[in-house]
Amino acid sequence: MRILGIDPGTARLGYGVIEDTPQLSVVTYGCLTTPAKDSQPDRLLSIYRQLGEIFETATPDEVAVEQLFFNQNITTAFAVGEARGVVLLRAAEAGCPVSDYSPLQIKQALVGYGRADKRQVQTMVSMALALEKPPRPDDAADALAVAICHAHMRTAQQLLAQT
Amino acid sequence: MRILGIDPGTARLGYGVIEDTPQLSVVTYGCLTTPAKDSQPDRLLSIYRQLGEIFETATPDEVAVEQLFFNQNITTAFAVGEARGVVLLRAAEAGCPVSDYSPLQIKQALVGYGRADKRQVQTMVSMALALEKPPRPDDAADALAVAICHAHMRTAQQLLAQT
Repeated sequence: MRILGIDPGTARLGYGVIEDTPQLSVVTYGCLTTPAKDSQPDRLLSIYRQLGEIFETATPDEVAVEQLFFNQNITTAFAVGEARGVVLLRAAEAGCPVSDYSPLQIKQALVGYGRADKRQVQTMVSMALALEKPPRPDDAADALAVAICHAHMRTAQQLLAQT
Repeated sequence: MRILGIDPGTARLGYGVIEDTPQLSVVTYGCLTTPAKDSQPDRLLSIYRQLGEIFETATPDEVAVEQLFFNQNITTAFAVGEARGVVLLRAAEAGCPVSDYSPLQIKQALVGYGRADKRQVQTMVSMALALEKPPRPDDAADALAVAICHAHMRTAQQLLAQT
């Protein structure tokens, strides 16, 4: 089972693919970027095409995306929403089910504590994936965190279904 | 010059194509819908495909999209943002420049008055396009209004450029 985690954004979009066998291991991760000088439609098109390559090469089965939360600049939130739309579209084209997780859910799943700071989350990402050091940049670490959160949630749901 | 106006949304997406010769006339208009039972990614994929048919058959040169405004339910706003992302992506794929207009700009361009009500806008849409009665549904009328707003703005900018 391969999970693609996405930390959506227009300027920077973090992605991370993990394998859940059920032991977790990393397949690939990184950060897509688009130039600020480009129009928003062109940036979305660039994201769409770059995502296409990730879907083709990393062949995820399921996708987990960080939800928008309201506690941020509203103009930024709308631009992130547009990028999310492109991510959801690309996942639907690939036939991958999509799950949404809030920042709070992701922190709780990784650190067991909703107010965990960025460094704690990154440390838990490294430990969960047996990486020697925290993945960089932050956007990629956040995307891997969403993917790990989804893996935990799937496992929990499967255990619950068995009881 | 053909202009595609879009009133974005996930459940209902209004569209309207007008010809600006510079006399305005209607080419086509309508409302794309997606079933509430479908997941958001599947709804976005459906919108993307339906939009593709409009771009292919109506061959617009430019696209005008209604901007999100903040004075609405935040969950709805995010879903509309995702639909907007798919619209902007499709426009970029078609090589059409995209312009954004706020609800206030649209009303001012059509009725000369930012607080115009829905009926006034619809009446002005019918008059501008020499339609016998207001276009239905409302989403389509709103989309035609965005397209007319863009036609007016283009004309105004061309006149300004000549002075």
